[in-house]
Amino acid sequence: MEMMAVIKAAREPGATIVKKPIPDDLGPNEVLIKVLATSICGTDVHIYKWDKWSQGRIKPPLTTGHEFSGEVIKLGSHVKKVNIGDIVSAETHIVCHECEFCRRGEYHICKNTKIIGVDTDGCFAEYAKMPEENLIINHAPIDPKYLSIQEPLGNAVHTMLHFKITGKTVAVVGCGPIGLMGVNIAKVVGAKKIIAIEVNEYRINLAKELGADVVINPLKENVIERVMEETDGMGVDVVTEFSGNKQAIEDAFKYVKPGGKMSMLGITPDMITIDLSNDVVFKGITIYGVVGRILFDTWHQVTGLVESGKLDLDKIITHTFRLSEIDKGMEVMMSGNSGKVVLIP
Amino acid sequence: MEMMAVIKAAREPGATIVKKPIPDDLGPNEVLIKVLATSICGTDVHIYKWDKWSQGRIKPPLTTGHEFSGEVIKLGSHVKKVNIGDIVSAETHIVCHECEFCRRGEYHICKNTKIIGVDTDGCFAEYAKMPEENLIINHAPIDPKYLSIQEPLGNAVHTMLHFKITGKTVAVVGCGPIGLMGVNIAKVVGAKKIIAIEVNEYRINLAKELGADVVINPLKENVIERVMEETDGMGVDVVTEFSGNKQAIEDAFKYVKPGGKMSMLGITPDMITIDLSNDVVFKGITIYGVVGRILFDTWHQVTGLVESGKLDLDKIITHTFRLSEIDKGMEVMMSGNSGKVVLIP
Amino acid sequence: MEMMAVIKAAREPGATIVKKPIPDDLGPNEVLIKVLATSICGTDVHIYKWDKWSQGRIKPPLTTGHEFSGEVIKLGSHVKKVNIGDIVSAETHIVCHECEFCRRGEYHICKNTKIIGVDTDGCFAEYAKMPEENLIINHAPIDPKYLSIQEPLGNAVHTMLHFKITGKTVAVVGCGPIGLMGVNIAKVVGAKKIIAIEVNEYRINLAKELGADVVINPLKENVIERVMEETDGMGVDVVTEFSGNKQAIEDAFKYVKPGGKMSMLGITPDMITIDLSNDVVFKGITIYGVVGRILFDTWHQVTGLVESGKLDLDKIITHTFRLSEIDKGMEVMMSGNSGKVVLIP
Amino acid sequence: MEMMAVIKAAREPGATIVKKPIPDDLGPNEVLIKVLATSICGTDVHIYKWDKWSQGRIKPPLTTGHEFSGEVIKLGSHVKKVNIGDIVSAETHIVCHECEFCRRGEYHICKNTKIIGVDTDGCFAEYAKMPEENLIINHAPIDPKYLSIQEPLGNAVHTMLHFKITGKTVAVVGCGPIGLMGVNIAKVVGAKKIIAIEVNEYRINLAKELGADVVINPLKENVIERVMEETDGMGVDVVTEFSGNKQAIEDAFKYVKPGGKMSMLGITPDMITIDLSNDVVFKGITIYGVVGRILFDTWHQVTGLVESGKLDLDKIITHTFRLSEIDKGMEVMMSGNSGKVVLIP
Repeated sequence: MEMMAVIKAAREPGATIVKKPIPDDLGPNEVLIKVLATSICGTDVHIYKWDKWSQGRIKPPLTTGHEFSGEVIKLGSHVKKVNIGDIVSAETHIVCHECEFCRRGEYHICKNTKIIGVDTDGCFAEYAKMPEENLIINHAPIDPKYLSIQEPLGNAVHTMLHFKITGKTVAVVGCGPIGLMGVNIAKVVGAKKIIAIEVNEYRINLAKELGADVVINPLKENVIERVMEETDGMGVDVVTEFSGNKQAIEDAFKYVKPGGKMSMLGITPDMITIDLSNDVVFKGITIYGVVGRILFDTWHQVTGLVESGKLDLDKIITHTFRLSEIDKGMEVMMSGNSGKVVLIP
Repeated sequence: MEMMAVIKAAREPGATIVKKPIPDDLGPNEVLIKVLATSICGTDVHIYKWDKWSQGRIKPPLTTGHEFSGEVIKLGSHVKKVNIGDIVSAETHIVCHECEFCRRGEYHICKNTKIIGVDTDGCFAEYAKMPEENLIINHAPIDPKYLSIQEPLGNAVHTMLHFKITGKTVAVVGCGPIGLMGVNIAKVVGAKKIIAIEVNEYRINLAKELGADVVINPLKENVIERVMEETDGMGVDVVTEFSGNKQAIEDAFKYVKPGGKMSMLGITPDMITIDLSNDVVFKGITIYGVVGRILFDTWHQVTGLVESGKLDLDKIITHTFRLSEIDKGMEVMMSGNSGKVVLIP
Repeated sequence: MEMMAVIKAAREPGATIVKKPIPDDLGPNEVLIKVLATSICGTDVHIYKWDKWSQGRIKPPLTTGHEFSGEVIKLGSHVKKVNIGDIVSAETHIVCHECEFCRRGEYHICKNTKIIGVDTDGCFAEYAKMPEENLIINHAPIDPKYLSIQEPLGNAVHTMLHFKITGKTVAVVGCGPIGLMGVNIAKVVGAKKIIAIEVNEYRINLAKELGADVVINPLKENVIERVMEETDGMGVDVVTEFSGNKQAIEDAFKYVKPGGKMSMLGITPDMITIDLSNDVVFKGITIYGVVGRILFDTWHQVTGLVESGKLDLDKIITHTFRLSEIDKGMEVMMSGNSGKVVLIP
Repeated sequence: MEMMAVIKAAREPGATIVKKPIPDDLGPNEVLIKVLATSICGTDVHIYKWDKWSQGRIKPPLTTGHEFSGEVIKLGSHVKKVNIGDIVSAETHIVCHECEFCRRGEYHICKNTKIIGVDTDGCFAEYAKMPEENLIINHAPIDPKYLSIQEPLGNAVHTMLHFKITGKTVAVVGCGPIGLMGVNIAKVVGAKKIIAIEVNEYRINLAKELGADVVINPLKENVIERVMEETDGMGVDVVTEFSGNKQAIEDAFKYVKPGGKMSMLGITPDMITIDLSNDVVFKGITIYGVVGRILFDTWHQVTGLVESGKLDLDKIITHTFRLSEIDKGMEVMMSGNSGKVVLIP
C-alpha cells in the first residue's frame, strides 16, 4: 500500500512529493496514524530552504513535518493506552529516559533527544508512524486543523505561562505564528496590557485582532521609548521573546521592569550584548530560556486552552492548503504575510 | 452636607437607612469617594442577620459594606497618587506595616488588620472615606457595577490561581457568588474540566452558564463516585473550596488526585475529620489556606481579568437594586437564588 | 553459590536466617550487588512483627530489607552507567514510566510503584539484585554504614527541605530515626530555632545532641503552650511531622504560625480532626504530604549533605550488628531506645 | 557630647577622622546606637577612592559605613519593638512603602530606596542614628564583630540560596569577601561540589579553607575546560557570580549546565556579550539578578545560619583594626589580600 509524502530527497533546497509505502513495520510501542491535518513549522521552512543548520542536521531522504493531528489506525503489539480510532497529536521530542535530566523528570532538556521530522520520518504524509509514548489523545470533537497546531501552541504556552502574566503588562516580541499565539494566550488569561512588537503589517494587524492593546513597529518608532510611555515609565512586567532579532532582544533588556521576567524562545544567529549590571543585576530580573514543551504539563495546558474555546484559533490559522501544495504553503510562510499555515493530506 | 447611609444602628438584626453628615474630617492620607456602586458580601449578610460572629465583632453604630467602586471627590493633604475624578475600588484590609508579616511583604496575614465596613465605617452610603493606600485606580471605562465586585472577585482569583489550573481538572466546591466567579475564572484560563458541586438549582444553572462542564448535586448523587467517574478514576488535579460545608470538604479529600492541590477559602463552624495518612501523606498533595487577596498582586490579576473582557460579569451579577432597597438585596442573598447582588446609591 | 539471607519465611511474626542461592538470573538492566551494610527501616519492623499492613501486602517467602550500600559485582547485558566495583545505594521505589505521573516526571507518586524488600526481594542478604535505574553511585570514600542510611535520610531531606527552613523556627514532631535526621538537617542548614517533640528519653537526649534547641516531652508538658512560649506567641514557621501520632498532629495545627508550612511524613492509623477554618484557612498555611523521595533530586541533596561532612551520622546510627543478629536489631528498634540500626552482612 | 567619626569631608579621595556631636535629634521612629563593630564594604572602598560612581552619588560631608552591630542606647518617641540594651544590626536600604514594588512586598527593589552611609550618615562612628524599621535584633550572645558582617552576609545568602544548591554542583565566581562567604554557605548547606574561581592566591587559599572542592585560577588554567572536566562534561548546576569580571561572566554562560541556574550579584562596568540562543534558550537555563537582601526573609536566613554556628566566620574575617585605623583597613581591602575587614570604634 502506498501513500503520498513530502520528502527532502536530496541535499538541496525544496521539497519533493513522492509515493512511498505506508509504514508497516510497527515496533511494539509504535502506532500507525492517518494524518488528518499537518502544519508548517519554522523548522520545516529551514529544511525547505536547506539553510546551514539543515545542512548539518538533516540526512535525506527524510519525510519532513512534525506538527499534526491524525487518527490511529494500527497498534504495535505492546501499545497500551492508545486505541484504534483515537484522534491524536504528538510531542515531537523523543526522549531517552536515561540521562540525568530524564531521571529528574526534566524531559524537555533530555541530552539525547531525537526530533520527529528532523531525525526520524515525520508527518508531511498521508500516514505516519509514531512512538505511543509521544502521543496525546484529543478527546474533544474539534476540527483536526486546530488540533494540528497544538505542538507549536505548546511552545507559545510554555513561553507565556512560565511566569504569571494575569494582571501583568506583557511585551510579545515578534508576531510570527508562535508570537501571534502568544498574544492571544495573554489576552485570554487576562494580561493587563499586551504590547506587541512587529515589523510586518500583515502580522501587526493580526496581532491587534488577537488581542494586542498596542503594536509597535520598530521600523517606525523607537521601541524603548514607546514601551516606557505605555507603561508610565516603569517598563513591562514580563517580556516574551519570539523574534530572534538581535536588536529586538537587546531593546527588551532596556524596557523590562525592575523585578520583571523574560521568557526567551526566539533563536538568533547573532551574539547579544547586554548591560548586565544595570539591566539584570540592579533590576533584579529573572530570565528563562524556553526549550520546547514541558512533558507533559505543557500539553495539558494546551489542550485545556484549546478545549476552553477561548482562543481564536480560526484567526491564528490564516491559510489552509492541500499537502500537495506544499510549495504554496512554504511561499506564504516565507512571505511573512501569514499566521499559521495548515496542510491537509 | 448630608448623605444617605445604611447602618447597623443597634445590637440587633436588620439595617437602618439614615441621613448622616458626609465625612469631612479627612486625615492627611485619606480620600473622600462618591460611591457609584456597592455590592453585598456574605459578611454583610452575617452582620445584617446579627449572628454570633457579628455580635462579637461589630460595634454599632457602623456604616456597613466594603465592596464598591466610586469617584474620588476630595483629597487629604498628603495624598499623592490618587486624583480627583479617579474611579477607584478598595482593598478592604487596612494593614499595620509593622508586624513580622507586613515586614516580609505578606500583608494579607497582617496580625493587626482592620477591615473596612467591619472595624471602620464602610461604603453602604452615598459617600465614603478611605485610606489612599487601600485604593486601586480603575483605568478602563467599565460599568461601575462590575468594578464594585472586584474585591470578592479577588478572593476567587486568589483561590483559583494560587495553583496552576490551565489544563487541569478542577473541582469548584460550592457555587455561591464567589464560587460562581471561580467557575468562570477556571473556564477563561483554560481548565481542562470544571466540575462544580452545588445543591441550589438556581446556582447549578448559573454554574453551567459560567463554564462548568459538570455540576454535581450532592442531594442527588454520590459526589465522590461521580467525580471519580468524570476523571477516569484519578480524581481532580485541583480542588477549590468555597462551600464551608463539612461534608463537602471531607469529600474533597477523597477525590483529589495524588500530587493534587487544594485551595481552601470556605469557612465552616464545624471540625473537619480527615484520613491524613491516606488522603494527604500517601497522596503527596498540597493544601493552601486562602486569606483575602495578596496585596497587591491579586488586585492586578483581578483588574487584568476584568479588563480582558473574557469574564461573564453580566451573568455573575444577577440582581441590581437601589441602595435604599437594602432589605430586598439581603433577602435575595439569603434565598440562595442569586449570584452577586449590586446596590446603586 | 550460596549466600546468607534474612527472609520472611511464613505468614507469621519473626525473621528466618537461611542459605539461598546468590541471584544469577540478572535481567538485561539488572545488577548484582555485594551488600556492605544495610539498615533497618520502620517498614522492616512492621514486616517482622507481621502487623495488619504486612499481612495484606507481603507474600512470603521474601527477602526483606531495602536500605543498603554495596559493591557492584556483576552487570546485566544492557547496563550502561554502573560499573563493576562501584559502591552503590538504591532508590527503593521501582516506577512504571508510563502512568500520568511518571510522564510528568513525578515519579515519586507513580501509580504502579513496586517497593524493593516489600514487593520484590530486598537487601537483608549477602547479595542482592537491583535494577540499574534505581542505583545511585557513591563517589566519595565514605564508610558503607553511613551510605546505607541514605534512603531514609532521603525521606528526612524531602520532609525538611520541601519548604525553606534556613532562618525559620521549625518543629520536628517525633524523634524516631528519621525525625532525628530531620533535627540534624535543620541544624546544618541554619534553622533559627529547632523545637523537637518526643516522649522517649533516649531520643530526647539524642535530639539535643543532634541540634534541637528545645525538646518538649508531651508526657510532661503542654506542647501547644510551650511552643507558643518558645516562639513569642507566634508559633513555628514550619512543622515537620514524623510521629504519626494523632494528638501530636492535631496539636501541630494549633502552633503553626500564620503563613506557616507543614510537611507531613508520619503515618497514623487514626482519623485526624482539625479546625480547618481557624487553623488552615484564616492562617493561610500550606500543608504538604511527603511521599518517599523526589527522583532523583532528593538523592542529589542527600549525597550532597552526606559528602559535606556536616551531618552527625555517627550519632544518628546508634547501633551496629551483624546481619545474623537481626533479632537483636529488631529488639532495639522496637524498644525505642535507638537512632538508626545498621546491620553488616 | 562628642564622638569620633570617619567622614568623607570633601570631594576627593581618602577619609577624615573627626570629632562631631553624637546625634541627639532622634525622629519619633529613630534609635540611637553605640556602634560595637563595623565592617568595610566594597562600596566604602569606592567612596574612599572617590571613583566615578562616588563622585556622582556622594554629597560630602557624610559619615560613611553601613555594616555594623551595636547597642541601642536611646529610643525615639514612637519606637515600639526595639529596647534599650538590644544588640542590633541594620538593613541598609531605607524603603518608601509607597511605590508599586513596596506595595507588593518587594521592598528590595523599591524605586525610592535610600542607602545608609551613602545617602544618609552611616556607622563609621562611635554612635549612629537609625530608623527602627531597619533594625534586626540579635538575640544570641555572639561576638559583635561577627554580627557586624551580617549585612554583606545577606548578599551572599540571597545569592547562594535563591536557587536550591543542596546536592548541586556550584560555581562561585570571584572570591572577594562576599564570594568567600558564598563558598562557606555552599559547604554548610551541602552543595555536591563547590568550584571556586579566583585569581588572588590569598583568596584562593581562603576559598579552600572555607569549603571549595576546587579552585580554578583563570590566570593559569582554561576555566571552561576545567569546569567541564570537573563536572563530567555536564557543567555546573548553579553559577553564583560575585566577580563583576567581564570574562568570568561570559565564561560562566558556557559552563552552566542545561536546566541550570545563574545568580548574578557582581557588578561590572563592561557590556557582556553572550550567545543567547545556544547558552540560554537551548539550554533552558534561568538567570536571576540579585539586589541586596529580601526584606526581611534574607535577614532571618542570615541570623539562622550565624546562630547555627556552622559558618566559619572567624576565617571569613581576616583583619580587625581600630576604627581610627581606617586607612590601614582600606589598604588591606584594596590589596585583595583579605577576607572581611572589621573596625572596632
